[in-house]
Amino acid sequence: MLKWLQEKYHAQIYTFTADLGQEFADPSRFKQIEDKAKQLGAIKHFTVDLKEKFVNEYVFPTIKANGLYQGIYPLSTAIGRPLIAIEAVKIAQKEGIEVLAHGCTGKGNDQIRINTTAQAYAPEMEILQPLIEWNMGRDEEIKYAQQHNIPISNQNKKYSVDENLFGRSAECDILEQPDIEPPEDSKEWTVPPEEAPNNPEYITINFKEGIPIGINDQPMEGVELIKRIHDIGCKHGIGRIEHMEDRAIGLKSRETYEIPAALILIKAHKDLEKYVCTKHENSFKSLIDQRWTELVYDGLWVDPLRDALEAFINEINIKVAGSVSMKLFKGSAEVIARKSPYGIYDLNLATYETKSSFNQKYSYGFIPLWGLQSRMGFIAKKKANENKQ
Amino acid sequence: MLKWLQEKYHAQIYTFTADLGQEFADPSRFKQIEDKAKQLGAIKHFTVDLKEKFVNEYVFPTIKANGLYQGIYPLSTAIGRPLIAIEAVKIAQKEGIEVLAHGCTGKGNDQIRINTTAQAYAPEMEILQPLIEWNMGRDEEIKYAQQHNIPISNQNKKYSVDENLFGRSAECDILEQPDIEPPEDSKEWTVPPEEAPNNPEYITINFKEGIPIGINDQPMEGVELIKRIHDIGCKHGIGRIEHMEDRAIGLKSRETYEIPAALILIKAHKDLEKYVCTKHENSFKSLIDQRWTELVYDGLWVDPLRDALEAFINEINIKVAGSVSMKLFKGSAEVIARKSPYGIYDLNLATYETKSSFNQKYSYGFIPLWGLQSRMGFIAKKKANENKQ
Amino acid sequence: MLKWLQEKYHAQIYTFTADLGQEFADPSRFKQIEDKAKQLGAIKHFTVDLKEKFVNEYVFPTIKANGLYQGIYPLSTAIGRPLIAIEAVKIAQKEGIEVLAHGCTGKGNDQIRINTTAQAYAPEMEILQPLIEWNMGRDEEIKYAQQHNIPISNQNKKYSVDENLFGRSAECDILEQPDIEPPEDSKEWTVPPEEAPNNPEYITINFKEGIPIGINDQPMEGVELIKRIHDIGCKHGIGRIEHMEDRAIGLKSRETYEIPAALILIKAHKDLEKYVCTKHENSFKSLIDQRWTELVYDGLWVDPLRDALEAFINEINIKVAGSVSMKLFKGSAEVIARKSPYGIYDLNLATYETKSSFNQKYSYGFIPLWGLQSRMGFIAKKKANENKQ
Amino acid sequence: MLKWLQEKYHAQIYTFTADLGQEFADPSRFKQIEDKAKQLGAIKHFTVDLKEKFVNEYVFPTIKANGLYQGIYPLSTAIGRPLIAIEAVKIAQKEGIEVLAHGCTGKGNDQIRINTTAQAYAPEMEILQPLIEWNMGRDEEIKYAQQHNIPISNQNKKYSVDENLFGRSAECDILEQPDIEPPEDSKEWTVPPEEAPNNPEYITINFKEGIPIGINDQPMEGVELIKRIHDIGCKHGIGRIEHMEDRAIGLKSRETYEIPAALILIKAHKDLEKYVCTKHENSFKSLIDQRWTELVYDGLWVDPLRDALEAFINEINIKVAGSVSMKLFKGSAEVIARKSPYGIYDLNLATYETKSSFNQKYSYGFIPLWGLQSRMGFIAKKKANENKQ
Repeated sequence: MLKWLQEKYHAQIYTFTADLGQEFADPSRFKQIEDKAKQLGAIKHFTVDLKEKFVNEYVFPTIKANGLYQGIYPLSTAIGRPLIAIEAVKIAQKEGIEVLAHGCTGKGNDQIRINTTAQAYAPEMEILQPLIEWNMGRDEEIKYAQQHNIPISNQNKKYSVDENLFGRSAECDILEQPDIEPPEDSKEWTVPPEEAPNNPEYITINFKEGIPIGINDQPMEGVELIKRIHDIGCKHGIGRIEHMEDRAIGLKSRETYEIPAALILIKAHKDLEKYVCTKHENSFKSLIDQRWTELVYDGLWVDPLRDALEAFINEINIKVAGSVSMKLFKGSAEVIARKSPYGIYDLNLATYETKSSFNQKYSYGFIPLWGLQSRMGFIAKKKANENKQ
Repeated sequence: MLKWLQEKYHAQIYTFTADLGQEFADPSRFKQIEDKAKQLGAIKHFTVDLKEKFVNEYVFPTIKANGLYQGIYPLSTAIGRPLIAIEAVKIAQKEGIEVLAHGCTGKGNDQIRINTTAQAYAPEMEILQPLIEWNMGRDEEIKYAQQHNIPISNQNKKYSVDENLFGRSAECDILEQPDIEPPEDSKEWTVPPEEAPNNPEYITINFKEGIPIGINDQPMEGVELIKRIHDIGCKHGIGRIEHMEDRAIGLKSRETYEIPAALILIKAHKDLEKYVCTKHENSFKSLIDQRWTELVYDGLWVDPLRDALEAFINEINIKVAGSVSMKLFKGSAEVIARKSPYGIYDLNLATYETKSSFNQKYSYGFIPLWGLQSRMGFIAKKKANENKQ
Repeated sequence: MLKWLQEKYHAQIYTFTADLGQEFADPSRFKQIEDKAKQLGAIKHFTVDLKEKFVNEYVFPTIKANGLYQGIYPLSTAIGRPLIAIEAVKIAQKEGIEVLAHGCTGKGNDQIRINTTAQAYAPEMEILQPLIEWNMGRDEEIKYAQQHNIPISNQNKKYSVDENLFGRSAECDILEQPDIEPPEDSKEWTVPPEEAPNNPEYITINFKEGIPIGINDQPMEGVELIKRIHDIGCKHGIGRIEHMEDRAIGLKSRETYEIPAALILIKAHKDLEKYVCTKHENSFKSLIDQRWTELVYDGLWVDPLRDALEAFINEINIKVAGSVSMKLFKGSAEVIARKSPYGIYDLNLATYETKSSFNQKYSYGFIPLWGLQSRMGFIAKKKANENKQ
Repeated sequence: MLKWLQEKYHAQIYTFTADLGQEFADPSRFKQIEDKAKQLGAIKHFTVDLKEKFVNEYVFPTIKANGLYQGIYPLSTAIGRPLIAIEAVKIAQKEGIEVLAHGCTGKGNDQIRINTTAQAYAPEMEILQPLIEWNMGRDEEIKYAQQHNIPISNQNKKYSVDENLFGRSAECDILEQPDIEPPEDSKEWTVPPEEAPNNPEYITINFKEGIPIGINDQPMEGVELIKRIHDIGCKHGIGRIEHMEDRAIGLKSRETYEIPAALILIKAHKDLEKYVCTKHENSFKSLIDQRWTELVYDGLWVDPLRDALEAFINEINIKVAGSVSMKLFKGSAEVIARKSPYGIYDLNLATYETKSSFNQKYSYGFIPLWGLQSRMGFIAKKKANENKQ
């Protein structure tokens, strides 16, 4: 793309890599990227460490929103895009750059996420999507690279992959067949459950105001904490997901993910939140969560609706404090216990033991009124059905 | 209760046991129950096999509604209660019985479910809840039994248990402590994941109009199919659930469940449904499912809202046909592939290969309009925020 | 457009006018349209009377859904578009026509409604939007007409208007200024409230299964009934609406409407529906109605979600039978009374007279449980807030 | 009640009247109430002016939530109850009072609202409902009063009325007949539309952060502003409402209201809010508003869900600034124009004039993707339907 932009537009190119933790395993990769960019003619290259910002302003809100798109996908890529777009715009504005080019195809969600965010922050900025413009197939792209002496290390890579510290996605090739199990080679982070340890591991995650602040009562900063949960999850084969996903653009696509930290943290958060919230809060929060998740998935991070949803979410999360214990074992991560100073639970009321302070005769008044209209409605409906026939 | 009712009200007692598959393991138990009832003075005892009715009219609608209360509990007990109430009323009306007595406490959901249903079907029927009336503790109950020569087989049973073919619940005793892992002795159906087979098992479940109709392409009737899934699930330690639950009555309570068949079937159904529905259907169906689930959980089975929700659900499920493959392994059950003649998926459109028939340039028109108001809203909000400060 | 298409594409043009009741006042207009089409070179012209179909399959479902977009606009134009598209496709397929051209601009909702419906019914059909293609301003259009001897009767018409028997919309010109009251000349159907009769008029509308079937207990067919309500409404200045509307395409626009029949019928229906439904139905139905309304407004008539929403709506409406009385007076239409065999209302229960059969002591059990979690939640939240500071 | 409590419980009675503006017309009434209380034996009487608190902390949130229960009732009484309960508790705690007695029957919503709020603030407080206890009919009550020399000014008053500055409700007697128009003598505030001025009146209401702050650009404090709107509304016969309402307790009841200020202010607010919000905000805000309204109506003011909903609502309302113009005429109040610095409206984009900066060709990309899944879904559904038959 770098070469092609120079050739086609005689443009001066500035390149930008956002560090969202995608190279947890090997941070030296960023240097290689920079070297390659310069070698191919980039005027200047920017590598910006956004890990902390990403965790605090994007990952934590996702946890507080129990953000699983269609009940499954924790938005790992979706929340990375607006941050990348905002930082790219910042650099562009500082350097006097007028056009933003990115490598998204015309079929995915990420182009929506990047373009919409970038143009909200910089309405005057022009955006270019070379992959749509050049319309080359993979073969042609490889040929183009060879003709232009562009080193391509992943020439044979089968899958299209995106990674950051909150998740890894893989698509393309055989994964596009929804009736075939995703092959093991599409996974890179997690061990197969079959090869995970034969003994379960228990961990306790500590929360304050809806945010994970420690593991096993050891306080920990956000990036570090996520890395630790990530490592434990990978070891036990947690968060290997496949599903058919409805893209904003209208297509369904088969996606596969590895999301160990996201899955563990969202499960833990959800459990604790449910414990400290009233049933009214719990029931309605799930609508809020779904709306937040769809909005963010759909690339509308900048919509002020997000601010309002987060105001709701943050208010709810004031009391999400305490700890949640989970058992990790061969691919499954289950909550087994929780504790909170704000749990809406009173053993004396709830217990079935005789000592309970709960007055069971309340039922005699509660049930007749609770069901009153439903019973009347049942009878009216029966009559209506009879008259219909 | 039988004795107590005779003593206190000089009443003639008819007893009724509904067979909802709770004794899958040992159907001869029903005979023992009948014998005991008669021995204790029951005029007449009714054991009614409701398994087929339960599966067709209660379990299948739950599957079609992806009915997991608070995302977790598949309503197994909740859907059994209205059926029991309706059948009890039928017997009562036939036998000229005027009062219905049942063994629910005054703290749970089941009293709401039974009373509300029974009184919708028979508004004139009086309902008696001896456990509220006598207000004895467990010790006193045991003493009462001994004094009246009532054999009590489970005198030492720690937990209060309910079972039917769709699930098993256990509560009381140590389970009332939300910060302690439920002990193994609260489980009776499933093996611990640690003792499950070392090799995964793959099964394919066939669906038609939202209903499971076969396993591995072998057609099967409802009761039989659920029993088979149940057995496979138990073997692999699937569906061992604990959670803090919001009761209709207002209390939170710690519940534990074993729901192998329910979990497997709902997961499979949900996946297939998502595959054949548009994103608009998928997004809205989750609200419908939540409302259906809460209504049924809350004991309002008779409310005509259920009819309307089910009309929606059934219309959606017309196209839920095909099959879903799952991998079961040491406590986890994951969907890995699905097939349907009505899948809204066109590989030619979705593929990232060059041959795709998808016109990527559509993005140039789609994205600016898709994000238009969000971008304008972002700018207006920024201005409002600035003026606020 | 007719001329331009012939010139530009050397195409043979078939023209089509759908009679949705827009010329209630003067049906002879359809003949004039046909004559003009032929005179300008149309091979064949089709005028199809769709009034009955429109009322039964589009207007009545809107009434049953209480279809007011953003609480205000009864979808009159929105529900006309899919019907026009379907009928146009039918004609095209019968006549072997390959391209559909229509007069929508690129800024409105109607292009979405027509194109999406047409291409669902006939995926192979090409669609042409000349107004986008030629990109002429109003002046240029008039000039073009004059150069081609095209008679233009409405040369000075200020507003862009759409009409059918369920409503009339006007936009453009001064109406585009949201801070200026729409001038009287933008109305054509209704009298100004100031000039309406000095005495109120009472009407009673009869319903069966959610559909209006008579006025003042006189049975009446759909089209006739709507025309009668329309006339009465116009006389009393009912249904003069202005509002800022969110278009599917992303823009907000200032719209003005005259919707006498729609407003009266939807108000009446909503009142009766509320009377025969339980509070659970009423609360949830409003979500269903909003979703149906947005889906239809957004041009997605063909989405199977509509079928499912309508299954819900129809189930609810089985019991919407009876009559509603309204008072019409100088611009306002208010419900004042209603009657139904299925009203969930029992005077003996509800009355504050002593004779009431309602047991007031139920409150002593109901209120403590009804508010239990809210009270516990209040206390937990207070504690959390204190710890926060 | 005062007498009865002394007789029955030999209790020392403290009496409390909350001034919520119910005697706008004649504040001297409060003195009469106090005199009567003392004369009948009250130890101490408290009249507390809560008008400002009521407006700022209860009325304004209702306006920001567009709080119309079941689309009709602006919660005037519902929001008064928690405030009265909280203030009563404060007095009780200060004076060492142990029991709270109030005059609610056992059939309404207000007992829930008062008891639940009071017991959240003071869990130890006992609550007494004499009207349930004594179970007298109206005749018996009058007789009791006569026997105890209790002056009863309203002996012949037909209706049960509640008033505060945000609305007046009337029920009982002929109003309990849902099929009979409420008689004029049930209204006391507003003129009949027929007798309202023959000329419309235009008013402009100014808003800041969702709160009305002026009329016709004249700044005004809350209580004063509401009083002014109230007077104008009464003069034009605005806000005369009747409807069948679903009570929390389960009953339906026929309620009539006069709500001139509430109706005008909520209509104005809603219009302005819609103008400054994105379509995503607008669509979702209506769910939030409905939930807030139902929660408050249902007496659960103390539930922390309200805090969270209000966090959402307040965030949205940051940008609800500007002014809305309305036309009031013979019973109707219609918005006719609005202005805001944050309106999401750009005439250059929206205009149908040629000068528009909107690129109409975007449609060519937008529509195919916008409708993609719906069209695919339509075809899949058709196939499924065919196979079904």
